[in-house]
Amino acid sequence: MSAGWFRRRFLPGEPLPAPRPPGPRASPVPYRRPRFLRGSSSSPGAADASRRPDSRPVRSPARGRTLPWNAGYAEIINAEKSEFNEDQAACGKLCIRRCEFGAEEEWLTLCPEEFLTGHYWALFDGHGGPAAAILAANTLHSCLRRQLEAVVEGLVATQPPMHLNGRCICPSDPQFVEEKGIRAEDLVIGALESAFQECDEVIGRELEASGQVGGCTALVAVSLQGKLYVANAGDSRAILVRRDEIRPLSFEFTPETERQRIQQLAFVYPELLAGEFTRLEFPRRLKGDDLGQKVLFRDHHMSGWSYKRVEKSDLKYPLIHGQGRQARLLGTLAVSRGLGDHQLRVLDTNIQLKPFLLSVPQVTVLDVGQLELQEDDVVVMATDGLWDVLSNEQVAWLVRSFLPGNQEDPHRFLKLAQMLIHSTQGKEDSPTEEGQVSYDDVSVFVIPLHSQGQESSGR
Amino acid sequence: MSAGWFRRRFLPGEPLPAPRPPGPRASPVPYRRPRFLRGSSSSPGAADASRRPDSRPVRSPARGRTLPWNAGYAEIINAEKSEFNEDQAACGKLCIRRCEFGAEEEWLTLCPEEFLTGHYWALFDGHGGPAAAILAANTLHSCLRRQLEAVVEGLVATQPPMHLNGRCICPSDPQFVEEKGIRAEDLVIGALESAFQECDEVIGRELEASGQVGGCTALVAVSLQGKLYVANAGDSRAILVRRDEIRPLSFEFTPETERQRIQQLAFVYPELLAGEFTRLEFPRRLKGDDLGQKVLFRDHHMSGWSYKRVEKSDLKYPLIHGQGRQARLLGTLAVSRGLGDHQLRVLDTNIQLKPFLLSVPQVTVLDVGQLELQEDDVVVMATDGLWDVLSNEQVAWLVRSFLPGNQEDPHRFLKLAQMLIHSTQGKEDSPTEEGQVSYDDVSVFVIPLHSQGQESSGR
Repeated sequence: MSAGWFRRRFLPGEPLPAPRPPGPRASPVPYRRPRFLRGSSSSPGAADASRRPDSRPVRSPARGRTLPWNAGYAEIINAEKSEFNEDQAACGKLCIRRCEFGAEEEWLTLCPEEFLTGHYWALFDGHGGPAAAILAANTLHSCLRRQLEAVVEGLVATQPPMHLNGRCICPSDPQFVEEKGIRAEDLVIGALESAFQECDEVIGRELEASGQVGGCTALVAVSLQGKLYVANAGDSRAILVRRDEIRPLSFEFTPETERQRIQQLAFVYPELLAGEFTRLEFPRRLKGDDLGQKVLFRDHHMSGWSYKRVEKSDLKYPLIHGQGRQARLLGTLAVSRGLGDHQLRVLDTNIQLKPFLLSVPQVTVLDVGQLELQEDDVVVMATDGLWDVLSNEQVAWLVRSFLPGNQEDPHRFLKLAQMLIHSTQGKEDSPTEEGQVSYDDVSVFVIPLHSQGQESSGR
Repeated sequence: MSAGWFRRRFLPGEPLPAPRPPGPRASPVPYRRPRFLRGSSSSPGAADASRRPDSRPVRSPARGRTLPWNAGYAEIINAEKSEFNEDQAACGKLCIRRCEFGAEEEWLTLCPEEFLTGHYWALFDGHGGPAAAILAANTLHSCLRRQLEAVVEGLVATQPPMHLNGRCICPSDPQFVEEKGIRAEDLVIGALESAFQECDEVIGRELEASGQVGGCTALVAVSLQGKLYVANAGDSRAILVRRDEIRPLSFEFTPETERQRIQQLAFVYPELLAGEFTRLEFPRRLKGDDLGQKVLFRDHHMSGWSYKRVEKSDLKYPLIHGQGRQARLLGTLAVSRGLGDHQLRVLDTNIQLKPFLLSVPQVTVLDVGQLELQEDDVVVMATDGLWDVLSNEQVAWLVRSFLPGNQEDPHRFLKLAQMLIHSTQGKEDSPTEEGQVSYDDVSVFVIPLHSQGQESSGR
């Protein structure tokens, strides 16, 4: 297994896709090269490099460069599962302009310079090749910026107005919004949800146009107006680690965790299984000898278990099969949310996976301003390669063991990310049980929250 | 407003419905009068009355009788919303025999006496009349007993066997069950889920046959083998109150809490709305002046909010409308789960409510054996009439204020239930904000957990 640092890779002939606006808008919006991914220069010695528009935020530690927002670090190991790295990452400054649609559905930039500033970190874990992950790393931030710019007036208001133009049609409109409890953070959540969907559509179009395939998970953290938003679609994970607290900031979406949603869809649309799969869950795949016996089973409406008498149709391959990390949707995929996979079919059949996959993320919000931050409070974001062998508690133990003794080291978050990855490689001093080793790609961001208070500009 | 204690009431000509087995079974099972609802005599002076098979578990405190299981109490106020009390209750001993289906699909009672003993408390809050609530109070325990008897072999095994007859077809069958983490408690959860569904079917048939209508919420607590199971479908609530802890044991199902599920169904089956409703959520109902404006909205995939330009179809009545306690599904119903309502339609239309309603409960499990019980640890179960005016914290405060000073009073749980109800009636010493008053029916069970340790028989 060789280890290599992330490098920017494009597939041959792959253009940077131009995000297009979703649904109701009539005329296309001209694509502008994003001012995103312009590096921050807050760390000594990093200014020159991070200004390069084509520089990627994830760097070799050997070159001593740091990431935007004082210090956010990522490390990626290519486990050589495929020719290209299936883990991809992106991070940078999120420069939101003040724009709106005019009467003629034309996009008007009211404020060409940045109006709101945020920061963005994203991990994409590809499958079926790196194409979707690379597209996502190059696209999602643009989709998000555009979605945020579309609601920016609501973001900076004390309370989002019922009408985006601020006009009050009913005198009690603000009261209706108040009663629904709608806050600016709900607009950011909505923008993240829409951006994931838009990015998924872009990936679908681009992969089809270039004859490529594949999908990826997506885990995104966005710092904006004093809050950290974590949006997750897939099986990567983000946790907050503080001196006395470990708080999960995401929830994994796998065929197991989303069993009921997936079974429910097959119940409503049995034709999606083309008569080849059974929707029901059994402890193992049934066989002829089980016919007529009463065996344990679960259907879509059950969180408990019951017994049913086995019929012939129960002997089909299960919609969700396998256990834990081995669980597969339609015998094919280990995740139930993510981007791409529009062309993915069950081997040797015409059965599509996509109807069962959601591109919409779950978003959690961390009110950083309420935390009374300590210097060593960090968010650890990583792909499943890390979490397969390290528990939240083990990661927190490594964080707490390392940071307090290295407060003067400007590269300590980078070194911590490195150490976390080394701990997945079965080193002797690894805290994993019985020296467990990850054979997957592994990517880690360590995001120090303390920097946010120093740099956060709000508006 | 008059207050009356619950009395057993049947609708004119209403027979006690005979539960029928669900789905796959071919031949009908003869109905046997349930041995359920035979009162416990654990409290002094209650033995004679509680042995009467037709005695209902909820009594007037004036008669000084107590409920099964040492002391479980209920109080019901009829707020005179309808001629009959729309709140109904049931509780009693749950006597589970050892039975199984034979080769000829015939129900064989292997152990005519009770094999496992549990206890059952249930609250049903009716709407559109008391019919469904009365049927549920008379039926659900029989459905549950039958469902539990169907899996009793699995309940008493160290681990539920893959095959109900215990025959091992694959040597590794126990390992498959182990890996899925299937425990006896999952069979109880499954039995509760199936019993709710079966009871819903019974209610549908009985109401149709007798030309009656209506529906009800259902909140059930079952104590079995050292665990307390709380199954909820509707907006009643159960909480655990201990000296240092308040733990919700149920979750309310209303059009607001189940917005995404309901919108999702309307997205998949738009014909359910018959062109009369809009699936989208807005802060208020839109009107002509909003046309063409960009307003706040949410669709089924969104937990956040975004803006959309208002089209004509957005002016329709919303699928979910209103705020908080006023929120209504299709302008009609304030709950999104429950039993009955098979005939319920939107006023002056043919649009049915039932496809949007689920009868399946959410079940939580309290491992009472792990609690290190104190004398004053109780579960408070109540219909929404209580929770509309008292918060969990206020109820806990009343519990903690009352119980410690009354440990010698054999009727203290009864008196506590009474006090909780009186607190909803705007008395001067009520802890409700600004003397809030409940105009709804109110029913309360106070279940002392400490008794369980003394009486629980396990097997």
